[in-house]
Amino acid sequence: MNRLHALTDGVYAIAMTLLVLELHVPDARSASELIAGLIALAPSLFSFALGFAVLGTYWVGSAINLSHLARVNRAALLLNVLQLFFISLLPFTTAILGRYPDEAAAVILYGLHLEALGLAQYGHWVYVLRHPELVQSPIDAKTARAVTTRILVGPAAWAVAMLLALASPRLGYAVFYVVLIGYVVAAVRDRTVVR
Amino acid sequence: MNRLHALTDGVYAIAMTLLVLELHVPDARSASELIAGLIALAPSLFSFALGFAVLGTYWVGSAINLSHLARVNRAALLLNVLQLFFISLLPFTTAILGRYPDEAAAVILYGLHLEALGLAQYGHWVYVLRHPELVQSPIDAKTARAVTTRILVGPAAWAVAMLLALASPRLGYAVFYVVLIGYVVAAVRDRTVVR
Amino acid sequence: MNRLHALTDGVYAIAMTLLVLELHVPDARSASELIAGLIALAPSLFSFALGFAVLGTYWVGSAINLSHLARVNRAALLLNVLQLFFISLLPFTTAILGRYPDEAAAVILYGLHLEALGLAQYGHWVYVLRHPELVQSPIDAKTARAVTTRILVGPAAWAVAMLLALASPRLGYAVFYVVLIGYVVAAVRDRTVVR
Amino acid sequence: MNRLHALTDGVYAIAMTLLVLELHVPDARSASELIAGLIALAPSLFSFALGFAVLGTYWVGSAINLSHLARVNRAALLLNVLQLFFISLLPFTTAILGRYPDEAAAVILYGLHLEALGLAQYGHWVYVLRHPELVQSPIDAKTARAVTTRILVGPAAWAVAMLLALASPRLGYAVFYVVLIGYVVAAVRDRTVVR
Repeated sequence: MNRLHALTDGVYAIAMTLLVLELHVPDARSASELIAGLIALAPSLFSFALGFAVLGTYWVGSAINLSHLARVNRAALLLNVLQLFFISLLPFTTAILGRYPDEAAAVILYGLHLEALGLAQYGHWVYVLRHPELVQSPIDAKTARAVTTRILVGPAAWAVAMLLALASPRLGYAVFYVVLIGYVVAAVRDRTVVR
Repeated sequence: MNRLHALTDGVYAIAMTLLVLELHVPDARSASELIAGLIALAPSLFSFALGFAVLGTYWVGSAINLSHLARVNRAALLLNVLQLFFISLLPFTTAILGRYPDEAAAVILYGLHLEALGLAQYGHWVYVLRHPELVQSPIDAKTARAVTTRILVGPAAWAVAMLLALASPRLGYAVFYVVLIGYVVAAVRDRTVVR
Repeated sequence: MNRLHALTDGVYAIAMTLLVLELHVPDARSASELIAGLIALAPSLFSFALGFAVLGTYWVGSAINLSHLARVNRAALLLNVLQLFFISLLPFTTAILGRYPDEAAAVILYGLHLEALGLAQYGHWVYVLRHPELVQSPIDAKTARAVTTRILVGPAAWAVAMLLALASPRLGYAVFYVVLIGYVVAAVRDRTVVR
Repeated sequence: MNRLHALTDGVYAIAMTLLVLELHVPDARSASELIAGLIALAPSLFSFALGFAVLGTYWVGSAINLSHLARVNRAALLLNVLQLFFISLLPFTTAILGRYPDEAAAVILYGLHLEALGLAQYGHWVYVLRHPELVQSPIDAKTARAVTTRILVGPAAWAVAMLLALASPRLGYAVFYVVLIGYVVAAVRDRTVVR
């Protein structure tokens, strides 16, 4: 269990920090060129912040959900590694979104990525619900429903965002932002306390 | 022991995440160029997934095997660091395989790398079997045989893959994939539970 | 809690180590060119050392402050993730400072970054003070005041540094160094012992 | 203490893995060019292996030495962060050694780096010896002498290597290798068992 947590936290921490590698120092020969170069980085900064919000939100969710588990088997370990696979890919699609914020293809690729991430998380959660022998204490039906809803709101919203991106990439992009802010606000209101 | 776990998980997590650095954002001036550029990344994505599967499989194996140990000496620490040496090299050979999937040299280099990884893991396991003073509870002969077989199936398969690669690089490459999927399927069926 | 520590330590460790990527191996065809190339790296080494000092100082502060917490909720987790957001951005602004040490814009950008980092830390600390249910043992008024002062000295000093940078970038840069050395000296004199 | 271990292990793990970034995939248009390109990477592979050996050896030493500590104060934390500063710089000097293995300047720079690393470790050890209140159980004079000797053999050897490098860079380089292999052999013979 501790090893799983360590690997998970490690991959999240590294993915968060690797996002920064897409922010390149601008080449400038004067103060005004430097300022212009920094301003031109705005789309990359936006996608950096989005990528960080995705990773932060999923990490908080994963930390709370994994706290239900008391033990794991190889299948559960691999379902986690599958999630980490999609997490470690995030710096790549974030970089594409930062470079091509106005391309529907870039926004849809990002949406598909988030979709895969959400479904991998859902698959892990369903596996946990079906294997009560791995759980610390029984998960009651109400908690199970609440968590399931919270996990599935994301993938539903990403689908909407991708459809909107076909008409207007910026609109789809905005939906990613709004939903993630929604998760953050919901989190701040949440009063669950974890040791 | 905790320190060893932390270093091990750290190196695995970073190697997993560094694989993504080989996926370069394509340069494109139109939507169709962007899509073409993303499609051209397919071989890199394939080798990324293979590298991730190698790291995931070896990490799960290492997590289960290290759980036998109750204490370590300097020699055991160094045998682990030797494994980490080959793990940290993986992003390099994975990048070569992604760039040159049709070259026998690239596939054989990857095979040699996996061979070294498998033998380092085997060496560590033999050391553990010969030093019962380091083990949590005695390892019975049946478990010892099963683990030994599981460790050695890989190196045997990589040898076959390298021979096939001489005739057809793609065929050798495919063997890597099939064997790793086999490990994953075996893992999912495995019912061992770990705290 | 352990997960939060692991993510935090991971992001700090990676940010510290990614700073090194801005130190590029010089291209040289002779011994004298190599030595000249290494000497030309001095500004980057300076900003590397500064970035490392910032990360080291904030990490020590965060390690001591988080030791007050016995449990967390989602809001506290997110306030931590916000700090990590600014931590993970540091290699970027450090690289800019290393490339443009004589530009007021670079020094002020760095100052704004440190400002954001200090305020995020302050926000987290205020949240902790207002939620005694999360704390291990009550924090007495004297400790609370001392920690608050220590956190706010930084942002006040960064504001001075930014003003000075308008007149002389090097002077502002020097203030960053002096204040951080002050933190280090204060730390060495501090006798608090932590398990 | 756990936080210090986590940061330390994280920085070591990342420095180990970042070494790989200096191994660039060769550009090749034929099988023979690919093989030639891989062979041309030999000096980088040599310095990669050396860098890894340095990190592995220092990590094992640090893991064993830190196990003496039961608690830390800010000064001890900062002495550790100082060691991590030199650890995180290692991928840079290793890359220089890999590019310029025949330049005395590169070998001497590496030697100075190892010198700084050894002295930082020595400083930390002396601090531990002088602050028995931080130690788990008293360190007897014999152990203290043995550890001091082990720590100081390195800096003495690096000094010899730097002097030799003035006459022949390759010879100085070879001394680094021989001494590190000596550490590894000594480690394998060491029977100390750690939990």
